[in-house]
Amino acid sequence: MSDDLGKLADTVLNRAKQAGLTIVTAESCTAGLMCQVLSDAEGASVQFHGGFVTYTKEHKVRALGVSETLLRTQGAVCAAVARQMAAGALEHSSADVSASITGVAGPEPDEDGNPVGRVCIGVARRGSPPRAFEHHYGDIGRDTIREKAVADALNAMADAIAPATASS
Amino acid sequence: MSDDLGKLADTVLNRAKQAGLTIVTAESCTAGLMCQVLSDAEGASVQFHGGFVTYTKEHKVRALGVSETLLRTQGAVCAAVARQMAAGALEHSSADVSASITGVAGPEPDEDGNPVGRVCIGVARRGSPPRAFEHHYGDIGRDTIREKAVADALNAMADAIAPATASS
Repeated sequence: MSDDLGKLADTVLNRAKQAGLTIVTAESCTAGLMCQVLSDAEGASVQFHGGFVTYTKEHKVRALGVSETLLRTQGAVCAAVARQMAAGALEHSSADVSASITGVAGPEPDEDGNPVGRVCIGVARRGSPPRAFEHHYGDIGRDTIREKAVADALNAMADAIAPATASS
Repeated sequence: MSDDLGKLADTVLNRAKQAGLTIVTAESCTAGLMCQVLSDAEGASVQFHGGFVTYTKEHKVRALGVSETLLRTQGAVCAAVARQMAAGALEHSSADVSASITGVAGPEPDEDGNPVGRVCIGVARRGSPPRAFEHHYGDIGRDTIREKAVADALNAMADAIAPATASS
């Protein structure tokens, strides 16, 4: 695991602590890597509730309440699914802020034809509508795609907790 | 990640495929490592639904339905919590078999005074009562405790799917 991810996790947990907020995650193609990184950062036992690893479409529906119709019509890798995953993680936890990742880490395109490296990241904060961002990393290797996705999700979460200032 | 864990994950997914069963996990101190290992094994996209990472007691209650009273009176690291985590993972998914891990990876004892290296592993199969096993690995380092816990959980899950035979 890269040091950069560790530093990003520290930033997220520091900002959460300062803001008095707790966090939760929802992951598909990264399969728990964001949880691993967050659990190793200082303050995890207080600020970090945990996460939902929803590898199949069925589990996205069962564990997070993602719409079956949406998954059937648009596939699992789209901004709408990322938003619903982030919102679902808040609904099924007592956390204040969530980040979600759904994408194709490879080595093959997914069953809906999404290319390797296409990743959608969602972020939600209680009381505000969830947002999503789409990334196209390209076919740069499974581990690198996963690390980039976690880095982008942690950055989005840090920003949702408190926008960066000169001191943070 | 050790090759041994990868081989164990292959065994679990092979047996699940042979038996036509799907799996799910519930993790506390390992924080998603079991999900990571399973997602890298062949057949994951069909047999492996995902998992619940429940790092705080509150999230064990919210995401898995573990009893608040049990957590308050016995702490998070006991066989009863491991059984409830495994059962809760089945209740909140459509998987057939689950494994759970709750323990103290360290470096410090947990808030209830459980020593580093104490880990309880649960396993459940739909239609049967969940079982649990307690392990005392000792203070052998955070990463090693996590890897041993995942190995023991994968072994328990493989056995719950189909007891070993000469050919498996």
